[in-house]
Amino acid sequence: MSTNNRRRNYKLKQTWYSKNKKGNQNQNGKGGKKSSQNYRQQKPQVKNTPVKISFLGGLNEIGKNITLLECENDILIIDCGMAFPDGDMLGVDLVIPDFTYIEQNYERVKGIVLTHGHEDHIGGLPFLLAKVNVPIYGTPLTLGLVENKLREHSLMNKAKLNTVHAGDTVTLGCMKVKFIHVNHSIPDAVAFAIDTPAGTIVHTGDFKIDCTPISGDMIDLSSFARVGDSGVLALLGESTNANRPGYTRTERMISNSLDSLFKDAEHERIIIATFASNVNRVQQIINCAEKYGRKVAFSGRSMVNYMDVAQKLGYLELPKNIIIDIDKLNHYMPEQVVLVTTGSQGEPMSALSRMAYSDHRKVVVGEGDLIIISANPIPGNEKTVGNVVDELLKRGCKVIYESMYDVHVSGHACQEELKIIHKLVKPKYFIPVHGEQKHLRKHAELAEFLGMDKKNIYIGDIGRTVEVCDSYMKEVASVPAGKVFVDGLGVGDVGSIVLRDRKHLAQDGLIIIVASLDVYDGHVISGPDIVSRGFVYVRESEGLLDEVKKTALNILEECAENNISEWGVIKNRIKDDTSKLIFQRTHRSPMILPILQEV
Amino acid sequence: MSTNNRRRNYKLKQTWYSKNKKGNQNQNGKGGKKSSQNYRQQKPQVKNTPVKISFLGGLNEIGKNITLLECENDILIIDCGMAFPDGDMLGVDLVIPDFTYIEQNYERVKGIVLTHGHEDHIGGLPFLLAKVNVPIYGTPLTLGLVENKLREHSLMNKAKLNTVHAGDTVTLGCMKVKFIHVNHSIPDAVAFAIDTPAGTIVHTGDFKIDCTPISGDMIDLSSFARVGDSGVLALLGESTNANRPGYTRTERMISNSLDSLFKDAEHERIIIATFASNVNRVQQIINCAEKYGRKVAFSGRSMVNYMDVAQKLGYLELPKNIIIDIDKLNHYMPEQVVLVTTGSQGEPMSALSRMAYSDHRKVVVGEGDLIIISANPIPGNEKTVGNVVDELLKRGCKVIYESMYDVHVSGHACQEELKIIHKLVKPKYFIPVHGEQKHLRKHAELAEFLGMDKKNIYIGDIGRTVEVCDSYMKEVASVPAGKVFVDGLGVGDVGSIVLRDRKHLAQDGLIIIVASLDVYDGHVISGPDIVSRGFVYVRESEGLLDEVKKTALNILEECAENNISEWGVIKNRIKDDTSKLIFQRTHRSPMILPILQEV
Repeated sequence: MSTNNRRRNYKLKQTWYSKNKKGNQNQNGKGGKKSSQNYRQQKPQVKNTPVKISFLGGLNEIGKNITLLECENDILIIDCGMAFPDGDMLGVDLVIPDFTYIEQNYERVKGIVLTHGHEDHIGGLPFLLAKVNVPIYGTPLTLGLVENKLREHSLMNKAKLNTVHAGDTVTLGCMKVKFIHVNHSIPDAVAFAIDTPAGTIVHTGDFKIDCTPISGDMIDLSSFARVGDSGVLALLGESTNANRPGYTRTERMISNSLDSLFKDAEHERIIIATFASNVNRVQQIINCAEKYGRKVAFSGRSMVNYMDVAQKLGYLELPKNIIIDIDKLNHYMPEQVVLVTTGSQGEPMSALSRMAYSDHRKVVVGEGDLIIISANPIPGNEKTVGNVVDELLKRGCKVIYESMYDVHVSGHACQEELKIIHKLVKPKYFIPVHGEQKHLRKHAELAEFLGMDKKNIYIGDIGRTVEVCDSYMKEVASVPAGKVFVDGLGVGDVGSIVLRDRKHLAQDGLIIIVASLDVYDGHVISGPDIVSRGFVYVRESEGLLDEVKKTALNILEECAENNISEWGVIKNRIKDDTSKLIFQRTHRSPMILPILQEV
Repeated sequence: MSTNNRRRNYKLKQTWYSKNKKGNQNQNGKGGKKSSQNYRQQKPQVKNTPVKISFLGGLNEIGKNITLLECENDILIIDCGMAFPDGDMLGVDLVIPDFTYIEQNYERVKGIVLTHGHEDHIGGLPFLLAKVNVPIYGTPLTLGLVENKLREHSLMNKAKLNTVHAGDTVTLGCMKVKFIHVNHSIPDAVAFAIDTPAGTIVHTGDFKIDCTPISGDMIDLSSFARVGDSGVLALLGESTNANRPGYTRTERMISNSLDSLFKDAEHERIIIATFASNVNRVQQIINCAEKYGRKVAFSGRSMVNYMDVAQKLGYLELPKNIIIDIDKLNHYMPEQVVLVTTGSQGEPMSALSRMAYSDHRKVVVGEGDLIIISANPIPGNEKTVGNVVDELLKRGCKVIYESMYDVHVSGHACQEELKIIHKLVKPKYFIPVHGEQKHLRKHAELAEFLGMDKKNIYIGDIGRTVEVCDSYMKEVASVPAGKVFVDGLGVGDVGSIVLRDRKHLAQDGLIIIVASLDVYDGHVISGPDIVSRGFVYVRESEGLLDEVKKTALNILEECAENNISEWGVIKNRIKDDTSKLIFQRTHRSPMILPILQEV
């Protein structure tokens, strides 16, 4: 399609959007099961330009959320997150999306729009920007956190950051993105209503419905309603809590729990671990501290960074002189301070873990400390969090953890909240996003329960592309996608072979067999020497290692006698025979590395 | 103490026990907080021979339960379990207790009494019996499972197994062990009331109060009451569910849930994953299968083994011709079969995992399969179970998991049940056992809440020994204890150094630098050659590995020039310089192994 054509279509779209925006009302309040017509009560004009939606992350996984909208010749990117490695991704620091498709289509990308500042939505940005310099659009706090991140990667100079506020609309090529205020566990989160030539796409981002949030307004349900009334082609809805019935409770209820804990802790120092990004949680802690005459100190690099950004941008209200440096903690009586720290997930290097294992340079915990873990363990972290709790208890601390008291609420919508959004947005098509298969399925079932036709629901996967327009939704050719591992400075250089080797080494260690061979007749001049690591405690296994040595020597000499000189053959024979011997003796299979040198 | 003395004391003890047994009644029904006198309402004669209680496992950990009672010159061992390795115990197959103290005091050990047949209570036996041949006492099912285990380890010939039934009493040296029937998630579980010259010790084992169990009677609360009335010196109570308020529900309720699932699955094949040891759960599945005209097949080695033992010993009632071989599964329509399988914890090699990842030789799952996971994930397994569920869902299966429906109940007592036991047993001293610190603490708080004096409660740890008699409870010299790792055939040969190396290798892989040096002048004759594994994808990192090679060569030549011939020095210089180089370039720290050969 030529540029002119594209421009024209875009104009058309705009006109349609403004027309529909004014005064259109939901004419039929009824809904309910099996009324797929009712589910979407308004039909906009038929538009047959399709929009392609591709998922580079966030489906069948938790984290690294990134979605591409492609219409006419334009591409729009929604979020660019990272994920934390699974237990079997040994040595991997973090996981980012595969950006191949974006790189290949760089010139068509009109921009990246960000829903909020969590790592699973912005953590991939530095790695993408290192390859392609795309303009970024986000709310003030989100961009504040992005700036911090880009500065660490020395990418701030060239980055094109554009601040947008909830309620604003940004035109990106043929698409027009409206930012809609939502509630979440970080301030300044938004959803998107994206007008495309194919129709309007709504992406919820991460959200909850909080009628009494700590800062800012309640989620802008009116905007969702208006967009819904104007006709929505497809809804992309987050699914994190799609398994949970009911409503997520308001963040504000934490205040009551904290208040009663603070009240009871008359002579105790209070240490609270929570997510550094949960600015509203920290605000409530600070409010409570003020009420009970305590000073507040921060511990943990990310806590200090987040609070710095939040304060600068006005998302954190600090009573005068309430914040003290962690070094000054001991200048006060225990009952005069609160320490707000990272480590609510039991991360091994976090501040709270260091305290638990007596490895923190500045804080020694013990009797007289009340420790509150104001978070739930993310699936997979239950054990490490449990271990940290145990260590703290052993040191004599009082620990409030998990669901013992009401010290945590989720930031994600439960089933009833999801239903409200579905009913307001009334999309023709529905695609559940942000979740593992179990969450996506549950969210799809929920849409079906609300009356949507099963064939209008699409459960995707990373790499999949779905083409949507008024008359159909169908899967089309997929795009490159996957998990790219970041290990130290290396991005993508740890792949399946390296990981396979790490797993093998982790399981049974290795045995190295080194020998120098005569360049002329192949006889052994030096060695074979045996070096082992991670296999057995060598001093207690000298006999076995001697046997390995003899076996290798025999093979080398036999090969020399028989003029077998291909090293591949010789090495394989050594590997085969010694691994058989070792398995027989130990039932283990260490990695065996024969190394030959010619002299 | 001489043997004669010991004998005499033992007689005395017996007399006291029988005297008190008859007709003693609880004279005061009242209890409640702050009545530490009331908590133990009967005082037996003062006996000043103390009993020593040592913990070789089960405290501050889940699993490898083993407790030693030592009185006069006799030692009694309660249970001998194993534990599964934590995520950081790389390559370790299982963890057993350190048996040093038992080996050192072998001749004084009168026997091992077993509470029930779970791995965390009997899994360590083969490793202990390989060292010391101690007579074993257990109920029929427990010993049936022990037999299986010993046969695998070729230890059956010499083992001294003694079958005991609930209600029986066994005299072991100066101690007299009464077996008391309890409910648990495996049949034939018992608690112990152990009369010692110091007084009676009650050990609950693992238990719950199930008024309507599937097989056998309700827990023998009357015996607990009688023992309590006779006076109990100390209670050792399991703490697994001490964090959970209320009561654990009856196993029988599973029948209702299964029934409605079976009823709805009109055209579906049903696959149910549960613990192989939960014979009563399998019984309920079989009953339901019979009602709905389905045949039952078993999958997974341990499921087949357990069902074999349970059936032979009469713990499983099988309707005629209901069991079919898994090979015959495809001879029936989906709605005519139920497959009962292992893998409820998402274990990578289990039958259910193989099905989920399309790796099962005999069963292919997909649409038309209803899969029920009749178990809760044990802490630490949440992620792997979740992954298995996702894979099954992706294949089109319907999956019932976790708390979605009532398809699982715990086998352990919740707070109200623990309270009942405390109130019946009325011990003078209390020691919470079986649990991590958080569970032990909660159980201790519960005892305190019931009115026990804090100083009469002891929270122990493995290796700790506590001496108890009527007039005091105090910690005495500790005993050797720890975690012994079993890896393949090796027991204890994987220690901290091997594990540290495995972790290092797992994290960043390794680089081997091999060179042959002239025996006379130290100059390099061959190499240095660089071999790496688990570090980077070599083909894409040739430049870096070349740099490593050059750095090593420079050092070797420099050392030769300067007549530095101590290999330790040379190797360290290579390690230092190359690791600096590598960290600079990659921010990784692979293990670096310089290997030199003299030619």
